[in-house]
Amino acid sequence: MASKNTKFFLLLFFTSSLLFLATQCYDQNPQIEDPRKQFEWCKRECELYKEKGQKELKKYCQEKCRERYEDQKQQQEEREKRGGESGTIGIEEEEEQKGEKNNPYFFERQRFKSKSKTEVGEFKVLERFSEKSEFLEGIDNYRLAILEADPNTFLLPHHCDAEAVVFVNRGEGTITFVHHERRESFNLEKGDAMRVPAGATMYLINRHNNEKLHIFMLIYPINIPGRFEEFFGNGGQESQSFYRVFRNELLEAAFNTPRDKLERIFGQQRKGVIVRARPEQIRALSQHAEGSSGQFRGQSRGPFNLLKQRPSFCNNYGQFFETTPNENEQLKDLDVSVAVMNINQGAMVVPYYNSKSTKLVLVAQGSGYFELACPHLARQSYQGHPISIVSTGNQKLQLVGFGVNAENNHKYFLAGQDNIWNQVESEAKELSFNVQSREVDQVFRSQDQSYFVPGPGQQQQQQQQQQQQQQRGEEGRGIPVPSILDFVGFL
Amino acid sequence: MASKNTKFFLLLFFTSSLLFLATQCYDQNPQIEDPRKQFEWCKRECELYKEKGQKELKKYCQEKCRERYEDQKQQQEEREKRGGESGTIGIEEEEEQKGEKNNPYFFERQRFKSKSKTEVGEFKVLERFSEKSEFLEGIDNYRLAILEADPNTFLLPHHCDAEAVVFVNRGEGTITFVHHERRESFNLEKGDAMRVPAGATMYLINRHNNEKLHIFMLIYPINIPGRFEEFFGNGGQESQSFYRVFRNELLEAAFNTPRDKLERIFGQQRKGVIVRARPEQIRALSQHAEGSSGQFRGQSRGPFNLLKQRPSFCNNYGQFFETTPNENEQLKDLDVSVAVMNINQGAMVVPYYNSKSTKLVLVAQGSGYFELACPHLARQSYQGHPISIVSTGNQKLQLVGFGVNAENNHKYFLAGQDNIWNQVESEAKELSFNVQSREVDQVFRSQDQSYFVPGPGQQQQQQQQQQQQQQRGEEGRGIPVPSILDFVGFL
Amino acid sequence: MASKNTKFFLLLFFTSSLLFLATQCYDQNPQIEDPRKQFEWCKRECELYKEKGQKELKKYCQEKCRERYEDQKQQQEEREKRGGESGTIGIEEEEEQKGEKNNPYFFERQRFKSKSKTEVGEFKVLERFSEKSEFLEGIDNYRLAILEADPNTFLLPHHCDAEAVVFVNRGEGTITFVHHERRESFNLEKGDAMRVPAGATMYLINRHNNEKLHIFMLIYPINIPGRFEEFFGNGGQESQSFYRVFRNELLEAAFNTPRDKLERIFGQQRKGVIVRARPEQIRALSQHAEGSSGQFRGQSRGPFNLLKQRPSFCNNYGQFFETTPNENEQLKDLDVSVAVMNINQGAMVVPYYNSKSTKLVLVAQGSGYFELACPHLARQSYQGHPISIVSTGNQKLQLVGFGVNAENNHKYFLAGQDNIWNQVESEAKELSFNVQSREVDQVFRSQDQSYFVPGPGQQQQQQQQQQQQQQRGEEGRGIPVPSILDFVGFL
Repeated sequence: MASKNTKFFLLLFFTSSLLFLATQCYDQNPQIEDPRKQFEWCKRECELYKEKGQKELKKYCQEKCRERYEDQKQQQEEREKRGGESGTIGIEEEEEQKGEKNNPYFFERQRFKSKSKTEVGEFKVLERFSEKSEFLEGIDNYRLAILEADPNTFLLPHHCDAEAVVFVNRGEGTITFVHHERRESFNLEKGDAMRVPAGATMYLINRHNNEKLHIFMLIYPINIPGRFEEFFGNGGQESQSFYRVFRNELLEAAFNTPRDKLERIFGQQRKGVIVRARPEQIRALSQHAEGSSGQFRGQSRGPFNLLKQRPSFCNNYGQFFETTPNENEQLKDLDVSVAVMNINQGAMVVPYYNSKSTKLVLVAQGSGYFELACPHLARQSYQGHPISIVSTGNQKLQLVGFGVNAENNHKYFLAGQDNIWNQVESEAKELSFNVQSREVDQVFRSQDQSYFVPGPGQQQQQQQQQQQQQQRGEEGRGIPVPSILDFVGFL
Repeated sequence: MASKNTKFFLLLFFTSSLLFLATQCYDQNPQIEDPRKQFEWCKRECELYKEKGQKELKKYCQEKCRERYEDQKQQQEEREKRGGESGTIGIEEEEEQKGEKNNPYFFERQRFKSKSKTEVGEFKVLERFSEKSEFLEGIDNYRLAILEADPNTFLLPHHCDAEAVVFVNRGEGTITFVHHERRESFNLEKGDAMRVPAGATMYLINRHNNEKLHIFMLIYPINIPGRFEEFFGNGGQESQSFYRVFRNELLEAAFNTPRDKLERIFGQQRKGVIVRARPEQIRALSQHAEGSSGQFRGQSRGPFNLLKQRPSFCNNYGQFFETTPNENEQLKDLDVSVAVMNINQGAMVVPYYNSKSTKLVLVAQGSGYFELACPHLARQSYQGHPISIVSTGNQKLQLVGFGVNAENNHKYFLAGQDNIWNQVESEAKELSFNVQSREVDQVFRSQDQSYFVPGPGQQQQQQQQQQQQQQRGEEGRGIPVPSILDFVGFL
Repeated sequence: MASKNTKFFLLLFFTSSLLFLATQCYDQNPQIEDPRKQFEWCKRECELYKEKGQKELKKYCQEKCRERYEDQKQQQEEREKRGGESGTIGIEEEEEQKGEKNNPYFFERQRFKSKSKTEVGEFKVLERFSEKSEFLEGIDNYRLAILEADPNTFLLPHHCDAEAVVFVNRGEGTITFVHHERRESFNLEKGDAMRVPAGATMYLINRHNNEKLHIFMLIYPINIPGRFEEFFGNGGQESQSFYRVFRNELLEAAFNTPRDKLERIFGQQRKGVIVRARPEQIRALSQHAEGSSGQFRGQSRGPFNLLKQRPSFCNNYGQFFETTPNENEQLKDLDVSVAVMNINQGAMVVPYYNSKSTKLVLVAQGSGYFELACPHLARQSYQGHPISIVSTGNQKLQLVGFGVNAENNHKYFLAGQDNIWNQVESEAKELSFNVQSREVDQVFRSQDQSYFVPGPGQQQQQQQQQQQQQQRGEEGRGIPVPSILDFVGFL
């Protein structure tokens, strides 16, 4: 339960739900004891949302004031009744239910709409960001999509009028690009990411016999902002073949082939854009493919595996893997980063912020919640906001993030052993906190872990673990990272 | 006449009319025989245009359904009456008349509005793209313009707050740039293109005694999106001289010259911005000019001639010339390409698409029609759409195109000897078409020409020609092109 | 007083008021004598503002017609009464009063709104440009701000989700950047400029004992166009600390510190984001700082001083200092220039234009007026417009400008010894002015100064001065400048 003079906001994540940088956008006045007066004060503060286009947030803010007021009343009643604290999980679920409706930064699974669907696969695209909130206009030209394909299936040859960065969340596939003078095939596995250039003709198989193939995609349309289209030479449906839109006379001339023969070719496949393939076809289509590379982050073509590369930072409580446009040719002119963050069961990442990049994050596995600061009531932003994430499920929480404006992004950690205040002069600390700087240092140095630490209520376990580690002579602070410059980019 | 289970759309081009990527945006259900029911089905399909901002296309789609329905009724009646097929030209003209009004991708000559006009010349600008259709918002910051000047005329010194790429469609001129420390003059002739930097002070002559000078321009305003202005030191009219807007006191101080002398200088020319010049003036203004270069595509200043360079591809049926930002310094930071496509009488270019670039195309000569695919009803785009163009007049069809987003653009050909399916594995072909891959190959290899082929109804001529070539021992497939990478960019 | 066949517009500048490229947007017909008929003609001309989104300018234009008509009537009456001319200053002040309300390019001091304010300092931001006029949409993503801090004060550690370029207009400070692995401090003094990267954690002191610190800022938000936010670890107010938005449980875990200790740290400072500092604290915080460099314009980090570098051009009447993105690493990817222009008492800068860059100009000192050409009634732009500025106060006029789209910008001077017409061929001059070219040359060469010249009514002084200089053997044309390419960028 939150104490009276803090503010909180929490969300439960579900697999495949989309986490955005959600925000805590209301305030609580520590000088006001009475919940009713607190509520009145809170509503007045929401009036600050008067800048052009902030009505939506004002409404959201006032709803949050009311929710908190009702929570406080209820908690007060419960405390009075049974003298205990309400369970964390219960509150979280409740908040999530209420919060999702109006939180402009959180998207549930059902916000992905099917664009192509067959018996054996589906391609789903998240609604445009501007449809959810005008606050997301800065990223409205980007789209997020998910491709799911059953074992032993084939996605037909096509091209798309958009740039894309794909990340394999699950399964094993082979992607093939067709150029006039050559063909390139690459095997894909969990953790692989790669760029698919705009207009490239490609096809894809799920080459696994049992496991689904699950691909996350960041899509950047080229010509009409925020809109894109796939084009299939033969997509198995009348409306899915671009050849069918030409007149027969024209096709007869182009192919130097009579109409009936053309009909035979273009009219036989009617199953749609993802079809089942026989094992021998799968074998033939994957046998010459190259694999991904974990060693060389910067390669200019083909998949690179995030999970096989050295983590940017890690310890007993979590790992962070990232490839940035500064180090990878494929991501450079898109100015996009790709990252995976694992937060172990019960752990959390300390509050931090990204200096430049906005992150679009999909929950790949596990559950948890996050808190995100928006200190000023009257304005919103996403990059620059300090955030903290806590894993609460019975497994690790795995997040997959695409970062936009990612070049030269830096991560600034605000707590933990390696935190930004270590470099602040003692006089500046005194002026900032109005206490002796050694008192400030004492607080900022109490946490002996960096980046990932035990989550709320886990400190006892931490101490035990540390004792065990000391007994085993282990270094508890994880792999040392040479420079903060390697930490760039992720949520 | 189109068969029932295809869809078609066609447009006639006229000299100086602007061709956009027009689009076939309605569907026809091959399972429905009755035209009335087909019409009802078609209208329902148009309901898919429900995304934000697609009302216009829904209306366009429904109009197209009605037009086709009426065409079909009429054709049916005619067939019943006289048992023949309706003439191609007639249909085309009719379609063009109907289609232009609402087709968001086609502009007629009269859409160019006069911005400056004198007795001996005119500068015309195409309306903003967004005024025609919200679907063109992606290119709304670009403008197209045409400059026409009579023989022996002079366009007065001026500058413009926009970047421009010019292409000489006709005639012979000399363009002069004035810098503080030097002056540069270049002769211009048909096929020359060059960049005119924003803010550069320049003037221009038509140095020919008999022929008009005809220049196509792509204009990219710098500060206010989509708007630009020319500034004349003395434009021959009160509102055309920027000196006249300063107070006399200020001009007297700036020039250290009394008012009456200033009046004498700035008040004598009253004929406007394009004036007639005497032959000796023309000679003086063109005598020190440099010519364009056909050899060196990449030059950083001065005109380069598209028609003098080696074509990207050509054969007996057409030629394609192009300069891209990848190979030319002037076009690099504008990310624009310039191209000329000649399609010989009766010939066509096979269906193909551009991977990245959107093309703004002006018809320089001849007539014809094009067909363009937009396979999904519910969404639009321009780049990425397969297109095919047929020359139908009694001369070659010549198109001049400016490509935006042109860097690293690739052309993918979908039919002809060199087509993208040649690289697709046989298993992928089988899965795509659900027939034996050799059947697919048979169709895709029947056309022995590449890129340009005989148009509809011309195949017989082709065979005769081939026989003649074989007798003469000629290679019928045109100049071999080293790599598809050279084909980038054009419509 | 302006003669009948010129048009004029003038504005008085005040310290800290913001000068934009104001514009003269109405016309006067020299053939019409009667003021009433002139007024009717003028109003009709305003009807040309019929393009989408120009209603505002039409209204402004018509107001200007009425104002001028009323001025003319009044002046006529006054002349009839006392036979004299109205005083320049009076007219200027009047114009300024009337003009500011609707002139879309001029902003008064009060348009800066306080964003943070304490007893000892203030941070003020200019309203969004689009709120003043839709004509400023091209620069709407940029914001201007002013920071003012009392002597011996401290701006608390924070970061901002925007890129910034700062210019020290007054005072002496020290700015400190905190990274995870190091700290950097730089001393700042009048004339220093530097980039503050998005997301960088920084703090700042005014280290002077008596003088205020006065900083101008150009701000470029990264994610939400035109909006930005500062984030303080501890800003001295409940709503100004991003730590306070996290729940206590989470902070306890992150810091491994109990709640009461955290409360002690985060609850003691309540004075806001700018606080008074003791002299020994100021000394400690500035003692290791590096100074700025005047020699090396291109440095990649730390402040560079504009006033210490060699001026781009200067003479007895003024100086111009500039740093452009072509020569400075920090400004390169922001594509921004910074410049200072001093126009001595009674002097002016001759009419000129910038080829590419739009300038946002703050008046640092002095007063004056400017005239700016917008020759065509029907359209607006800012870059490319010829402008002239006159210093009228009893001290030099000092302007500080930030230029956007600044790369490869060129200045073109339209009068003075070095003016663009010097390079125009005599035949082109004859065709442009319809008089003998030597008459044109006579006018364009009468001014023997370049760039800065004596203002209106100061020519007599100029002649005297020249005589004195000749007696002293001085070269009156100022420091010669090697190439016009060095003049790029400023207003």
